[in-house]
Amino acid sequence: MTTTAPTERTRVRRLPDRGAYDRDTILGILDAGYVCHVGVVDGGHAVVIPTAYARVGDAIVLHGSSKSRLMTLLGAGGEACVTVTHTDGFVMARSAFHHSINYRSVVVFGRGEAIEAEAEKAAALEAFMERLHPGRWREVRPPSAQELKATGVVRIPIAEASAKVRRGGPLDDPEDMGLDVWAGVVPLVVARATPIRDGSGPM
Amino acid sequence: MTTTAPTERTRVRRLPDRGAYDRDTILGILDAGYVCHVGVVDGGHAVVIPTAYARVGDAIVLHGSSKSRLMTLLGAGGEACVTVTHTDGFVMARSAFHHSINYRSVVVFGRGEAIEAEAEKAAALEAFMERLHPGRWREVRPPSAQELKATGVVRIPIAEASAKVRRGGPLDDPEDMGLDVWAGVVPLVVARATPIRDGSGPM
Repeated sequence: MTTTAPTERTRVRRLPDRGAYDRDTILGILDAGYVCHVGVVDGGHAVVIPTAYARVGDAIVLHGSSKSRLMTLLGAGGEACVTVTHTDGFVMARSAFHHSINYRSVVVFGRGEAIEAEAEKAAALEAFMERLHPGRWREVRPPSAQELKATGVVRIPIAEASAKVRRGGPLDDPEDMGLDVWAGVVPLVVARATPIRDGSGPM
Repeated sequence: MTTTAPTERTRVRRLPDRGAYDRDTILGILDAGYVCHVGVVDGGHAVVIPTAYARVGDAIVLHGSSKSRLMTLLGAGGEACVTVTHTDGFVMARSAFHHSINYRSVVVFGRGEAIEAEAEKAAALEAFMERLHPGRWREVRPPSAQELKATGVVRIPIAEASAKVRRGGPLDDPEDMGLDVWAGVVPLVVARATPIRDGSGPM
């Protein structure tokens, strides 16, 4: 993947100055997340399913029960729209109209490709584990042949993708700047809280 | 909305014990979030767009530029799948296979209904603002007639919906319980950081 020229469906049409198509921006946003929303057309209807993902090379990798609807559909080459969003803050303006949300999002369109080879499957699952906790893969019991068989893994190439980012403070109208209203940004942060050991109580 | 019987597309098929269809569970998950992922079929392809939402009565309310693709499509009665997901923690098991993520998610299928009346539009926008900060609506400059016109607002009834929840610790195989591996949950929390006043520096 190099910088991808926007296609008709990845070109950011509303507020085009928020759009970005360069590899660094897109991969940076993908690498900061854990859960994506996968959209597929199923029976003529859009279905949006949240699922864990990892970015491996120039692809998004998804996994699930090999019998699940998503793995079946994508493993057979079905098309998906994968969206990753980070909500970074509330933008509090002096007028109701200019309130907004700071965010970073990426949309990827692509067809699924089943990963079948055991070694490649294991490598993809390792990528998932390393996102949760670096070094984890070498600490835990590795998957058995049966477990690998029960796990469906698909890749979606990051070839047709775009990012959209809003950052910074409110953009108020000049005539509102004198209003006696608190204006600014309330940042939202995702943090890892203290780990709870299994067996130590309710969690 | 009362308890909704699962339909063919809302019935949770994988791990059905994680599914829930009761009003309290569904509304509780919706009321805990700010950004949803809206899936629509556009030109035969699934498109998943992140956007702010509010739950007002028994509907999800979305807004955007009245000229945007999403507002145009949903305002004309187009069908959407709206998904809200909270990622609550990483589940660290003793085996690679049993690693998981704790989450709460809701999927709603429905057709958009444009909200056109000025008073109803303003009430919907108030609901958005009150989610960001209670009491905010009365503090800021209210929307002008022109701003209201530029804002598209649609509701999607919460009539066909399901929730899916995973909570608690790892579910390891009995033969792995003796392994010398840290197992438990790493909770993820979304927190509001210290607000940054507009004009006080970079944000």
